[in-house]
Amino acid sequence: MRDVSIIGIGQTPVGEHWDKSLRELGFQALQAAMNHSGVERIDALYVGNMLSGELTGQEHLGALIADFAGLRGIEAIKVEAACSSGAAALRVGYMAVASGLHDIVACVGVEKMTDQQSDAVTSALATAADAEYEALQGLSFVSINALLMQRYMHEYGYKKEDFANFAITAHANAMNNPYAMFHTPITREQFAAAKPIADPINLLDSSPIADGAACVILAPMAIAKEFTSKPVRVRAMAIATDTLAVHDRRDPLYLEGGAISAQKAYAVANVGPSDIDLFEVHDAFTIMSALSLEAAGFAPRGQGVRLAMEGEIGLNGRIPITTMGGLKARGHPVGATGMYQIVEVVEQLREEAGANQVKNARLGMAQNIGGSGATVVTTILERL
Amino acid sequence: MRDVSIIGIGQTPVGEHWDKSLRELGFQALQAAMNHSGVERIDALYVGNMLSGELTGQEHLGALIADFAGLRGIEAIKVEAACSSGAAALRVGYMAVASGLHDIVACVGVEKMTDQQSDAVTSALATAADAEYEALQGLSFVSINALLMQRYMHEYGYKKEDFANFAITAHANAMNNPYAMFHTPITREQFAAAKPIADPINLLDSSPIADGAACVILAPMAIAKEFTSKPVRVRAMAIATDTLAVHDRRDPLYLEGGAISAQKAYAVANVGPSDIDLFEVHDAFTIMSALSLEAAGFAPRGQGVRLAMEGEIGLNGRIPITTMGGLKARGHPVGATGMYQIVEVVEQLREEAGANQVKNARLGMAQNIGGSGATVVTTILERL
Repeated sequence: MRDVSIIGIGQTPVGEHWDKSLRELGFQALQAAMNHSGVERIDALYVGNMLSGELTGQEHLGALIADFAGLRGIEAIKVEAACSSGAAALRVGYMAVASGLHDIVACVGVEKMTDQQSDAVTSALATAADAEYEALQGLSFVSINALLMQRYMHEYGYKKEDFANFAITAHANAMNNPYAMFHTPITREQFAAAKPIADPINLLDSSPIADGAACVILAPMAIAKEFTSKPVRVRAMAIATDTLAVHDRRDPLYLEGGAISAQKAYAVANVGPSDIDLFEVHDAFTIMSALSLEAAGFAPRGQGVRLAMEGEIGLNGRIPITTMGGLKARGHPVGATGMYQIVEVVEQLREEAGANQVKNARLGMAQNIGGSGATVVTTILERL
Repeated sequence: MRDVSIIGIGQTPVGEHWDKSLRELGFQALQAAMNHSGVERIDALYVGNMLSGELTGQEHLGALIADFAGLRGIEAIKVEAACSSGAAALRVGYMAVASGLHDIVACVGVEKMTDQQSDAVTSALATAADAEYEALQGLSFVSINALLMQRYMHEYGYKKEDFANFAITAHANAMNNPYAMFHTPITREQFAAAKPIADPINLLDSSPIADGAACVILAPMAIAKEFTSKPVRVRAMAIATDTLAVHDRRDPLYLEGGAISAQKAYAVANVGPSDIDLFEVHDAFTIMSALSLEAAGFAPRGQGVRLAMEGEIGLNGRIPITTMGGLKARGHPVGATGMYQIVEVVEQLREEAGANQVKNARLGMAQNIGGSGATVVTTILERL
């Protein structure tokens, strides 16, 4: 099996791109990554996307983007794993290069959500849950997360204000990310006063829907230096699943998929949580940050929130998270989000994160979560 | 790169399964394949599906089926490439085993279409075309194929009756396939009298929408004999893309994706069309059989139909196609179809095709076509 490296990255700003179609967004990120890496050919393209069929009436995104990018003829397919579609597409690209089948592979995450009214988007997002046993009962993603947060607060004795620092940190970091959706810092007072969405979740617990695309270019490590002086190695990747419906879990507050995929990735990389210099969490809602930190071993059960309360998640903290704004403030174009996380970890490991640079970052991790934890992709990247 | 083999297959009957949900269909095929191969564990699951989001309100099929099958924890994702989603899922499974990342991998193709009215299904299928430049103009898949067939007849001087044998052969072969949707032979007279759908395509040129699921279990060749005395080797696989919209092609009657993927597969396998003992074509419409036969090198341009007219596509013909009924008579559950093709080639190579057995079949090929040729997956399987 060949070692795989990331030799280039690209991304569009995250936001409301009413003037750009899916293919244009995907191509923009792909072109940026090709320019960044200096590659002139692509052998295969794997597209992560969740909702193009529901929201844009367009499936077949592999061919769509390959065609529009002038890459007709190459292998191209779409990969879907709900909100973890982005990292799932990276996984397929990783296998293509690791196996020796392809050398230069592009992985694009792309999503376009803001052309639709929010009720259509809410329904579409609910297809990540169990259609027959959750969505049919009227559960949306925010209500599922509200139930989890309520239970967490009850079980471990937190107040909702204790989650504030997740959102405040994300917004602070997004200030220095030109691709982020929000460039507005928020305060503890604003968090406390934010409008409720589904109690106890308020507007500032929640990541925004958005349009955007991100891309990485992969190559075998053996030839990576031909393209860049700063290749980033894919040290380990693992996908793990859990029950689709939250009510089927032994313990709804334990992200078993997050734990299994993290443990597998740690084992392959032969490292542990204390070796990780930054961690891009899937902060679709603040409660998910807490659960992900716990599942990945950065905090004991019920203590994930404490990392935020104690300021340990900032750029100089014990485990910096959402270093470029996270889902909360960079924005959450669902099928693209996992690829944005990877792009941002690469920025950190290449020391191209500007004012948000985590000092001496050598190992970075991302955890991309599909649904309410039914699919979790953990990726560990390494600066060489 | 490791050699990959198919150690077991499973399938549900194709038809209207109003009493079975997506997860039940997927699980039924998976369980059948696990029983057939004797495996007790699965390391990863790749699900090919096109329309679950549009027609069932359910994405996230990797987790859905892994969960329902009692395989929680394993890696599982969905792969989409329109009507070639089934073979695309096999491609990902192939890479997972070839790379050494996983040993025992299940690839499931599943689709559920018949719970919806046909206008909803027609719209959903149009997401395989170019949403902005084809579907928006009112083009459906049958009308796109009608344009191609009309042009083909004009260009090469055929009558529509000349296509009859594609449908007649498919229906004849389906008689002996217990999993086929139709067990009714058709005659030349019935074909000529069939109701028009979109001129010149009539009802008997067209494959039916359907529900169904098929599955193959993959393992490295090195351990295949532990599970079966008749492993089938994946000798070559290639995916190629073309323009998404037919009007962008230099020549709409040339399936460039079909030609490129076939040539790549032949090159890897070091064989040519004359070495292939049977060929499962993607006969969504009779015109597609002709174009696929030509693209894959079994007939010169404009001569694909002649193979049907001259009876060369039957079980004892020069190149047997649709040996278990094809899309036309086995049925076309779109995202599952590519996996049914693979299952049927395996049946032939294991000499388990019953009355439809192609004598001395050693090399079998399948071509799974997404959209009107924008994605084509060619697979060559070999009996050892």
